[in-house]
Amino acid sequence: MKLSDVKRGSELRTASIEDLKTLSDDVRDTILKTVSQNGGHLSSNLGMVELTLSLYHVFDFDKDQLLFDVGHQCYTHKLLSGRASSFATLRQEEGICGFPRTDESKYDLWNTGHSSNAISAALGLARARDLTGGEGRVIAVVGDGALTGGMCYEALNDLGSRKTQMIIILNDNGMSISSNVGALSNYLTYLRVSKGWQKLKSAFSHILFKVPIGGKKLHHLFQNFKDHVRNIFVNDKFFSSLGLRYLGPVDGHNIQYMTQLFRHLQDEKEPVIVHVMTKKGKGYPFAEQNPERYHGIGPFDLKTGERIEKARPRSFGASACAFLCEQAQKNPRIVVVNAAMTTGTGFDGFAKAYPKRHFDAGIAEEHAVTLAAGMAKGGLRPFVAIYDTFLQRAYDQIMEDVCFQDLPVVFLMDHAGYVGGDGASHHGMYGISYLRSIPGLTIVCPRNVDEMLSALSWCLKEGKAPVAIRYPQADIPGPAYTGSFSPGRWECLRKGQDACLLAVGSMVPNALKAAEQLQKNGIEISVLSASSVRPLDEMALKEAADRGMPFFTAEENERSGGFGSAVAEWCAVSGTGEVRGVFALPDAFLPHGSREKRLQECGLDGNAMAEFIRRKLRT
Amino acid sequence: MKLSDVKRGSELRTASIEDLKTLSDDVRDTILKTVSQNGGHLSSNLGMVELTLSLYHVFDFDKDQLLFDVGHQCYTHKLLSGRASSFATLRQEEGICGFPRTDESKYDLWNTGHSSNAISAALGLARARDLTGGEGRVIAVVGDGALTGGMCYEALNDLGSRKTQMIIILNDNGMSISSNVGALSNYLTYLRVSKGWQKLKSAFSHILFKVPIGGKKLHHLFQNFKDHVRNIFVNDKFFSSLGLRYLGPVDGHNIQYMTQLFRHLQDEKEPVIVHVMTKKGKGYPFAEQNPERYHGIGPFDLKTGERIEKARPRSFGASACAFLCEQAQKNPRIVVVNAAMTTGTGFDGFAKAYPKRHFDAGIAEEHAVTLAAGMAKGGLRPFVAIYDTFLQRAYDQIMEDVCFQDLPVVFLMDHAGYVGGDGASHHGMYGISYLRSIPGLTIVCPRNVDEMLSALSWCLKEGKAPVAIRYPQADIPGPAYTGSFSPGRWECLRKGQDACLLAVGSMVPNALKAAEQLQKNGIEISVLSASSVRPLDEMALKEAADRGMPFFTAEENERSGGFGSAVAEWCAVSGTGEVRGVFALPDAFLPHGSREKRLQECGLDGNAMAEFIRRKLRT
Repeated sequence: MKLSDVKRGSELRTASIEDLKTLSDDVRDTILKTVSQNGGHLSSNLGMVELTLSLYHVFDFDKDQLLFDVGHQCYTHKLLSGRASSFATLRQEEGICGFPRTDESKYDLWNTGHSSNAISAALGLARARDLTGGEGRVIAVVGDGALTGGMCYEALNDLGSRKTQMIIILNDNGMSISSNVGALSNYLTYLRVSKGWQKLKSAFSHILFKVPIGGKKLHHLFQNFKDHVRNIFVNDKFFSSLGLRYLGPVDGHNIQYMTQLFRHLQDEKEPVIVHVMTKKGKGYPFAEQNPERYHGIGPFDLKTGERIEKARPRSFGASACAFLCEQAQKNPRIVVVNAAMTTGTGFDGFAKAYPKRHFDAGIAEEHAVTLAAGMAKGGLRPFVAIYDTFLQRAYDQIMEDVCFQDLPVVFLMDHAGYVGGDGASHHGMYGISYLRSIPGLTIVCPRNVDEMLSALSWCLKEGKAPVAIRYPQADIPGPAYTGSFSPGRWECLRKGQDACLLAVGSMVPNALKAAEQLQKNGIEISVLSASSVRPLDEMALKEAADRGMPFFTAEENERSGGFGSAVAEWCAVSGTGEVRGVFALPDAFLPHGSREKRLQECGLDGNAMAEFIRRKLRT
Repeated sequence: MKLSDVKRGSELRTASIEDLKTLSDDVRDTILKTVSQNGGHLSSNLGMVELTLSLYHVFDFDKDQLLFDVGHQCYTHKLLSGRASSFATLRQEEGICGFPRTDESKYDLWNTGHSSNAISAALGLARARDLTGGEGRVIAVVGDGALTGGMCYEALNDLGSRKTQMIIILNDNGMSISSNVGALSNYLTYLRVSKGWQKLKSAFSHILFKVPIGGKKLHHLFQNFKDHVRNIFVNDKFFSSLGLRYLGPVDGHNIQYMTQLFRHLQDEKEPVIVHVMTKKGKGYPFAEQNPERYHGIGPFDLKTGERIEKARPRSFGASACAFLCEQAQKNPRIVVVNAAMTTGTGFDGFAKAYPKRHFDAGIAEEHAVTLAAGMAKGGLRPFVAIYDTFLQRAYDQIMEDVCFQDLPVVFLMDHAGYVGGDGASHHGMYGISYLRSIPGLTIVCPRNVDEMLSALSWCLKEGKAPVAIRYPQADIPGPAYTGSFSPGRWECLRKGQDACLLAVGSMVPNALKAAEQLQKNGIEISVLSASSVRPLDEMALKEAADRGMPFFTAEENERSGGFGSAVAEWCAVSGTGEVRGVFALPDAFLPHGSREKRLQECGLDGNAMAEFIRRKLRT
């Protein structure tokens, strides 16, 4: 059976196990081919092929509901639900998204991207089903990495208490994105290697799984089996203490085993957790050996496994890591906290060099932030490296635990701005807005790596209060930075008298282009690099306002509550100055695609800004 | 021993058990007397008297560090750490705070108020101690209610894996604020009533606890005892599966038992959880019988237990509850989700009338919000009632799970604005700012209960997308509301030509007063009730701008990113209109105290606004 034979996912319900096996090869080849060309999430998707096929074989997704936690493991699901022919456009402008998207298919039930929410969402769907007299199963596929997020536990606690029927597939590949952390991860390992499971494999599997399904004998056996499942499989303690029935572990690459187990779930009246063991990168030796490297990867050569890339620009994260590694030699108080993204944020070097001073909290941003606050209170200098989009998960902790106590925690917010391939759930385009609502937090958006390093130096030398440094993935072009960062001081990159363009971080190059364009029309504007988003440079603002220069602002952040809003607020409160234009991303959820194209669409390229300013100054 | 005999908490280390017992009576009397006069958190504090005394008896808080989760159980701690003489000022303007505050005493290690963060913070302190070569124990006192928050689990998961030495006191009173919910609560009950514990009480307690401490025999016994503690006490599964040592349960009102147990913790090398059973309201029969009623209470008559109060104004929460109860009769899709504050938000009536359609998620705002999103996706109409300050804990979920999917969840945000007695951690003064950064969310701040009911009607009739309705605790005075809420439409309450004052929700009465004042000076201003904070009423804005009227805005929210900011943004983007003044709370953490006084200080009373506008219009 080939993917081209599958018109509808429901056809898999009548396929033979052998057909599913040959189909799994085609699915795997398709994923490998597409990701090697377009980039994407490889390891987790290769691990999910047989599990997804087995779910499609047993369940009916015109009636049953399937949710993926995080969603970076949904490629097989996309291939089976009518998107095989468009799969080659994965992650490309106007192509299909790498994460489930409700506007792409009715089989994508939830817009995902962030972690640990699927059990809550599925529980909501299951309760809605029960209250509206609906039917069908609700299934949440949750990775063991996602289980490090506390929200999963909140949902399990609720589920185990009210016993709403739903199925949780625990897709356990022994890692989140980096190697998995935490006691529960140890516990899952214990379940995997426990004697019960070993015994089962050697003694029971041929009885349970090799007898044709449906026979009375097997059914009877299985009934007893379920009653004693904890003892026969393994002696689970964690899930059962939360009132939940646990089944497993089962080999997640054996379609026959899985489908037979899943069939028996169809009659369950209570919630059940099925522990499925999969291998990240399964079937592609390079990824099996180094799953983290192939977690989210750019285009690569299928034969050699080597990345195909242009020269990569300097990365903010790796540069911050190198700087802190160096500083940490003389300053024993420096520690780094990550939330499962040690490699993504560029901090593996620190983790290796200072294992006792590096703390990976798991996909647990709330804990990561408050842990850092405790460390700062205890006299350490914690640096918390988390993507802009994920740090919003700790909004309350930044406010209550860090800023309310004025503790010197430094947030390193990677992947700020429009991030391209991953789409709406991953853009770091709300950071300035949500941080600006937190009192006492200094917000820095450096215009290149060197300014970031200068800001880090300032934090270590002078910083006694919380600071957030927000930067995109790769270095930003533009003039060399030779200054010395100081909060509330903006750098003047160009002088003019007709208007003042205040550009934040990644928008500096486009602002300079706009100024050049305007010069050709005889308009001379000042360009200031407003790296200190809070505090504002009030002297610079006042000086420009006194000279009657109108302000324009530019930021790679949504408009609402952003930097432009801060300057407009300042004008209103101080009674001077006027903002004539706010260049910003719209208040919206933007799809994945090309950053360059999106910035153009949003009027954030140099030409569009110049044209807008010209028009505004004319009136 | 009396409180007046205690100069320093460390004196309790040499006190006799008998002295501690008599002291506990004085502490309890003092708490009762003060709370009956000033209001405050009664039940949880009465439950904590003996436990706190026992901690002070065994540990040295000049060296050991004590953190309280939530913090509404810290009164005994405050009385013992140098604040007995000022305790009568509890919760009053410039008096001592009802929650731990670092600026009040060096023994208050953490500014608390929100829940489930103490283990993370304590773990940070413990790791800082270890990395800086420090000494002493770090102790986190965590209620069983706080344990329903996923952040606790994130911290336990980390702690059980890296085994940093710290002590968690699980203060288990069988409830959070409302009756406790969730599977873990059932599990704790199981631990309490398990045979191991019963056996221990009858057979072992006299051996363990009645032999004088320090004797070799006892020590030896205890060593063995610890090795088998799980079997002798109870067979814990939950904590041990997370790699944590569990001790308990122990009677939290028996000082002798507790102090003897705590002494043995001083030598522990690994993290340990001690399960202490306390009774909420202990020693005050009215509170023992009805702990929820006395959880957070206003002044009351000590003899009768009856509240002393002026006529209470209509509450927003109770009115919303009554309305939804009525609507729910004909609309089976209406459901209500709470996060442990069913009574606080006024929704106990709904919980009683529709137990199958009321969901208390526990102190688990993240889960509550995504659960509601799932329900909305499944066709229900969920109303999520959470205080403004606590909803910020689900910032990510409001964005990713509700708004990104455009699901019709209605948030009922109680306790908006400056809340008075509880202080900085409880003011609902950031709500407009953080909500404004979330795309697609309609934000409503009704000017009284009737407008809120009209907004609720609109949600049920027309609302197909997420809406947040933000209101203070009690009804707002002012002219009767006879309109019909519609988003993007503001109500004109007064017409003038000199300026336009846009007032949000609770600020409407003061805005009207300001207008009256100004009229006396011959200045006529328009007053608009801007209940639709998003979308703005662009027609009204444009009309006023076209007439050359400058804008002033008023809101009981911080300035940064708030409503005034939204109007200033609009002016900048649309190229018309001018904001000449933003009346708002400062971007700060404001102390507890009198709302009236604070509004005056911040220039938000009618007189101050009138004076400011007059001055601005003169220039």
